[in-house]
Amino acid sequence: MTAERLRERRRGGRRTGGAARAGAGKPMANPAFRRLSNPYAPIEQYSADQIEAIHDTSLTILREIGIRVLSDQARQIYRAAGADVDEATKHVRIEAALVLDAVGRAPTQVTLRTRNPVRQVTAGGKALAFATVGGPPNVSDIENGRRPGTLAAFRDLARLAQSFDVIHLLNPMVEPMDVAPPFRHLRMTRTMVTQSDKVPFVYCRGIQAVADALDIIRLANGLTEELFTRTPCCFTVVNANSPLQLDDLMCKGIIEFARRGQLMILTPFTLAGAMAPITLPGALAQQNAEALAGIALAQMVRPGTPVAYGGFTSNVDMKSGAPAFGTPEYVKAAFASGQLARRYRLPFRSSNVNASNAPDAQAAYESQMALWGAIMGGCNLLMHGAGWLEGGLTASFEKFIIDVEMLQMFAALMQTESFDDDALALSAVREIEPGGHYFGTRHTLARYETAFYAPLLSDWRNFETWQESGALDATRRANRIYKQTLADFEPPALDASILGEIDDLIARRESEGGADLER
Amino acid sequence: MTAERLRERRRGGRRTGGAARAGAGKPMANPAFRRLSNPYAPIEQYSADQIEAIHDTSLTILREIGIRVLSDQARQIYRAAGADVDEATKHVRIEAALVLDAVGRAPTQVTLRTRNPVRQVTAGGKALAFATVGGPPNVSDIENGRRPGTLAAFRDLARLAQSFDVIHLLNPMVEPMDVAPPFRHLRMTRTMVTQSDKVPFVYCRGIQAVADALDIIRLANGLTEELFTRTPCCFTVVNANSPLQLDDLMCKGIIEFARRGQLMILTPFTLAGAMAPITLPGALAQQNAEALAGIALAQMVRPGTPVAYGGFTSNVDMKSGAPAFGTPEYVKAAFASGQLARRYRLPFRSSNVNASNAPDAQAAYESQMALWGAIMGGCNLLMHGAGWLEGGLTASFEKFIIDVEMLQMFAALMQTESFDDDALALSAVREIEPGGHYFGTRHTLARYETAFYAPLLSDWRNFETWQESGALDATRRANRIYKQTLADFEPPALDASILGEIDDLIARRESEGGADLER
Repeated sequence: MTAERLRERRRGGRRTGGAARAGAGKPMANPAFRRLSNPYAPIEQYSADQIEAIHDTSLTILREIGIRVLSDQARQIYRAAGADVDEATKHVRIEAALVLDAVGRAPTQVTLRTRNPVRQVTAGGKALAFATVGGPPNVSDIENGRRPGTLAAFRDLARLAQSFDVIHLLNPMVEPMDVAPPFRHLRMTRTMVTQSDKVPFVYCRGIQAVADALDIIRLANGLTEELFTRTPCCFTVVNANSPLQLDDLMCKGIIEFARRGQLMILTPFTLAGAMAPITLPGALAQQNAEALAGIALAQMVRPGTPVAYGGFTSNVDMKSGAPAFGTPEYVKAAFASGQLARRYRLPFRSSNVNASNAPDAQAAYESQMALWGAIMGGCNLLMHGAGWLEGGLTASFEKFIIDVEMLQMFAALMQTESFDDDALALSAVREIEPGGHYFGTRHTLARYETAFYAPLLSDWRNFETWQESGALDATRRANRIYKQTLADFEPPALDASILGEIDDLIARRESEGGADLER
Repeated sequence: MTAERLRERRRGGRRTGGAARAGAGKPMANPAFRRLSNPYAPIEQYSADQIEAIHDTSLTILREIGIRVLSDQARQIYRAAGADVDEATKHVRIEAALVLDAVGRAPTQVTLRTRNPVRQVTAGGKALAFATVGGPPNVSDIENGRRPGTLAAFRDLARLAQSFDVIHLLNPMVEPMDVAPPFRHLRMTRTMVTQSDKVPFVYCRGIQAVADALDIIRLANGLTEELFTRTPCCFTVVNANSPLQLDDLMCKGIIEFARRGQLMILTPFTLAGAMAPITLPGALAQQNAEALAGIALAQMVRPGTPVAYGGFTSNVDMKSGAPAFGTPEYVKAAFASGQLARRYRLPFRSSNVNASNAPDAQAAYESQMALWGAIMGGCNLLMHGAGWLEGGLTASFEKFIIDVEMLQMFAALMQTESFDDDALALSAVREIEPGGHYFGTRHTLARYETAFYAPLLSDWRNFETWQESGALDATRRANRIYKQTLADFEPPALDASILGEIDDLIARRESEGGADLER
């Protein structure tokens, strides 16, 4: 019977709808997607006792084994705070009380300012925000294939990010390999603040590069030095060099971000079986030790500086050593990482990841696994939300659009509707003949325009109509949508005098030779 | 840093692994996937009060509005049980106490017998089982395109279902349009029991067709009439003709299945905005009324007969009337339907559905949304688990393989690992240099062969290797895998004398002209 009812349904005049919109490729402004709050209780992977066992193991690691810290300055800060530092091996061993005291000083929630107040992002509690892909050296689309990242690709991805309300933060979308490294941070940051008024990212690539990027962002926000230091406006991600090592640039990033009061996300990158134990509880204990060590350092520099707890535990294929993402193990680790973050009352960062080499069904199902793990794990800040492909080695324009569709579906899932007598609809049921339909009822007519999620990419037309219109699969439709979105793009307002100040700063720094990335 | 670590990882000798297995296309026997138990607490869409409000509204619908019942025999059963029957309009109105008393007689759990005991399926509690697609009139693969279903396609899909341990039940995978309707049930049932030893489906297409199919299944199980009636060995799905109508054949199916003690899944097919109110609470109240009416009828025929509560509330695109699946609304309805099923302590049925016209990224992400809604909603019996495409109008061979991969990932997610000192891995962490790796440790070597989920379809090789080997996307790899799986197929054991009895029965029924599908 179901199939018969469906055939009847699908014979109806489906000439418009999702696909017609998809064909037009207009990004749909949806202010409801600008601030998301997750109404669901998080899924828990482990019992409270098991989380305590992971917690205890990580504290034992920090106390007995310690973490190797390659920055002299960071070791000095740890020592001054009371940690046991071995200068010969560069090992820092920290007692539990010292770690927990420092971590306890971190705020439970942080609000990131934007020059356009509607773009402000809150991290923590039930708030949920999505960031673009960050870091790939390559970019791809299905027409031009995979090639090294450029500043133009970086700009185009920033424009896509700006175009969809469901994207809240900009990661460094692709590495602009056509810009010389000493100047790269200047061009990337300028592109972010001119093409978008959303929260930008800053790389920890040395003290000077961080200072330059923060200055540009400070100017874009129209803030004084003093006010900027009290107003988080951007974020960075600090990865441990797992297992159990913090390198020099990462330490400098932690110290600089803490001094300037900007948000840092401490994210050990722990692939179980490779850089972490092959068992999930073990990998999570190591992740936790590394995250707590970094968060403690930040709080030792400046108590109360905003931080987030990043979980990025996945696994490798043990037959080949290949990294895997969006696996069942990844999902379990995301659920557990959310529990750990909440254990410390910290905002939780997770990621939308996959290992596919093409923006295909594998990319979609691995990403969905990762998204459900992250979001139902209680994620506050979702990194790599749109565009990540190939285990993070490529930013894909089509995957960006596929991801926006998926993120919008989650954003719609987060919306709660009224639940009253009118929603229970008994009066509407009374109006209908058995076997009839509700299309013309007053109850339907009052609600049909906004009742359900309207897709960007999904094509719900019947097979014949879809075939007549070219039988484009989702990836090819995504290609059209990204190009149309770029064609329609208009940059956000930025005061001309502010842009002048930014360009003066960049010109000066460029004439000085840019940043020394080793410092 | 993450990207750099990844590049290092991916430069490693990834010449084998997932894709190598995918290329071989050998279905991987995994006995751990034969009995699944869901360790997670279900996600709840509504508060307990809101669920009670939906429950109360549905009881008001049954008491005040009633349901139209097109079967004389069914109306007689309702009347004999104490319902108020209007023979002129065929409306049956049932008091809450009568409905709840009847529903309360249904068992909370049912075990479905199979001739091979390892294939036995339990429905209810935390048990989770997956069924194939059922019902499409068309079949497709990417080489031959979409065409009407045939018995050969039905057989091939049954063979795929048999080949993967993660598939537990066979729905009627595709309609064999090349078999005349009076004989179709005979050929379909024979194909199911010869190609597979998993739990088969029986259509409610009239009393004779049901009796024939049940007889074949009884013979395949080697059971007497009497024993068969006490031993559920197969299942059917009964859809209401929503809104609020039970047609003649469906009623006959309910009555016949109850008499024979076989499992029926009562599943209203309620598309919000079309056959149900546009508001989810309203659509769910109608779904609940229809499901309870059918379940009550079954229990009036034979108290204690096994039933499951089916939820199939989705929505239409209000601009075109097109049905949509795997939407945010679908997910919410699945979470809520699970709550309702548990309210009545009944096994819960949900579905893996999508509206895509191709086995592409849309098919994958819509299916994933549906799967998470179903499984985290506490689903016991997942219908359309593998192969459903195009809103149920096509059974796709490639989608079957994509779905098997997704189901296997969920099956792996359902596995719980030991959590002890060895899993916490402190001793392994002690062995490792900071910045080193765990590949060669005793802890890793003892576990690497079974540590993580090994994919069937996902390709985790690096981009260059993938490209050199033909750059096949997931859909094209799925095509290879399904063909290889069919090439490798070996049917399960079936006693020759039993097969002889079945063929005698079929020959006799065929000589008699098959079944009258109107009775």
